[in-house]
Amino acid sequence: MIKIGILGYGNIGRGVEAAVTNANDMELAGVFTRRDPESVETETGAKVYKVDDLYNMKDEIDVLMLCGGSANDLPVQTPEFAKYFNVIDSFDTHAKIPEHFENVNKSALEGENVAIISVGWDPGLFSLNRLYAQSILPNGNDYTFWGKGVSQGHSDAIRNIPSVKDARQYTIPVESALNAVRNGENPELTTRDKHTRDCYVVAEEGADKKQIENDIVTMPNYFDEYDTTVTFITQEELDANHAGIPHGGIVFRSGTTGLNNEMSHIIEYKLTLDSNPQFTASVLIAYARAAYRLSKNGESGCKTVFDIAPGLLHPESPEFQRKNCL
Amino acid sequence: MIKIGILGYGNIGRGVEAAVTNANDMELAGVFTRRDPESVETETGAKVYKVDDLYNMKDEIDVLMLCGGSANDLPVQTPEFAKYFNVIDSFDTHAKIPEHFENVNKSALEGENVAIISVGWDPGLFSLNRLYAQSILPNGNDYTFWGKGVSQGHSDAIRNIPSVKDARQYTIPVESALNAVRNGENPELTTRDKHTRDCYVVAEEGADKKQIENDIVTMPNYFDEYDTTVTFITQEELDANHAGIPHGGIVFRSGTTGLNNEMSHIIEYKLTLDSNPQFTASVLIAYARAAYRLSKNGESGCKTVFDIAPGLLHPESPEFQRKNCL
Repeated sequence: MIKIGILGYGNIGRGVEAAVTNANDMELAGVFTRRDPESVETETGAKVYKVDDLYNMKDEIDVLMLCGGSANDLPVQTPEFAKYFNVIDSFDTHAKIPEHFENVNKSALEGENVAIISVGWDPGLFSLNRLYAQSILPNGNDYTFWGKGVSQGHSDAIRNIPSVKDARQYTIPVESALNAVRNGENPELTTRDKHTRDCYVVAEEGADKKQIENDIVTMPNYFDEYDTTVTFITQEELDANHAGIPHGGIVFRSGTTGLNNEMSHIIEYKLTLDSNPQFTASVLIAYARAAYRLSKNGESGCKTVFDIAPGLLHPESPEFQRKNCL
Repeated sequence: MIKIGILGYGNIGRGVEAAVTNANDMELAGVFTRRDPESVETETGAKVYKVDDLYNMKDEIDVLMLCGGSANDLPVQTPEFAKYFNVIDSFDTHAKIPEHFENVNKSALEGENVAIISVGWDPGLFSLNRLYAQSILPNGNDYTFWGKGVSQGHSDAIRNIPSVKDARQYTIPVESALNAVRNGENPELTTRDKHTRDCYVVAEEGADKKQIENDIVTMPNYFDEYDTTVTFITQEELDANHAGIPHGGIVFRSGTTGLNNEMSHIIEYKLTLDSNPQFTASVLIAYARAAYRLSKNGESGCKTVFDIAPGLLHPESPEFQRKNCL
């Protein structure tokens, strides 16, 4: 059994807890938190420890899942804990991945551990599909669409507007853009062409709704480059109809082959997810299995999904995989 | 530059020839054939040699692409040439992969070469997607659909019927079955539920068309378990409208996560291909790059797509990949 530790007990941490119960070759060693452990109740009854307890539990954990945020937690935690554990994180600040990789690699080599960073679906499975498809169709265009799904960042941005009590923002791909790509038209798409943004907003009593709507649709970076719809609803409606965290998206490669580029091909990879954090956690857990196997095999250092042979993710043996999956 | 040899100059061999011209880091060392080399003219003007010339050209070829058939050629050729070259094949007799793997592995270890077998899209990219998706969603169902596309095997089977001059068979996924899977209904699907078969047949003059149609739709294994449509056309119509070799298909994983399987997720991987052999050849060429890199790194033995880290397929460096693809 692979012994899994969870650091950080938010949505992703709870998702990892659930994913471990669905993996026949894994068991949960414990949840680690910066909060008072007494104040945290886990969904499976798994034991909760203080972060500092980790330093005394090296032998009780095979892979530590770092379930904090990319802005403040992971840039510190992944390099720190890669010194002592095999670790997996879901660092998703694309622009800072090279720097994060270098920091984590140094620690992981020093501690002779395996660290796999930026695991999830984007970065993660979507990155893999971009890489595979570019490798197969060097002449072509990439298209990535997100949604329909909840963007936590955009929902937070709306909640920060004065007189807004609560909000939920959905990112929605534009159907005509999807169809143009599927038809092999290789369209040039602006930001506005690709996605629309739907906002459900709970305003405080007596708020100036026109002002709130204007503040949203003109917000730089978040909304100004998109066609944005704002709908005011009650807190009850939001709680009843918008409590979930669905997401998903599509990665396309539209490319040509032949001596005169006479043949066209479309590769499409689509995710439709009821729960973004539970699915992300399920990807993390598959890569935990790979980290464990690589570490047992004497490897160390920082890796990404690009470095991991797919067979390492699957619970069964290479012989089984060749017989049943190939 | 990676020097590529091609053994067998049919549709796949010609596809590899074209794919090499689209790869900036590769060049064609030569085409090798069992026919009289004088009788073979390549599309790029590449030099043509006899098969036996291979034994004298070990230093001029980094990776040999085995482009023969799975029934008779590859079971002999791949073990033979893995003794002398890094090799790639597209062996697609699923049931015989374990045996083929063992034979090729022995030769490749003996010759200290890298052999990657069963490369293409099914087996190949579809297998990879089944494996990744099973690893991420252990609770779930797999669905593989093929088409719309030309099945060479089924077209040949029709051509073997008396009084049939020519034929083209299309495999077509049933739209309602696709939609049921996409909706997360996890349907149980029979062979008949998943695909229909459309046949375009050129009959000889005076042939009994009713008899031909009956021979097709009742043919065991090939057609009897499917809803099959037979349309008689002229040779001119067949040549004009059915000359291409398009194909494709979809791999789905429909799975659940959560402590009570309360969240559903769909992973969909779809290929839409103008030319089955050109696309297959493009996959082969990407894996040739991986075989070359692994061999340079001192590895040997037989591998499948499950053993190959994705980054090895991409022409750019790991640093570039992390910065631009992750």
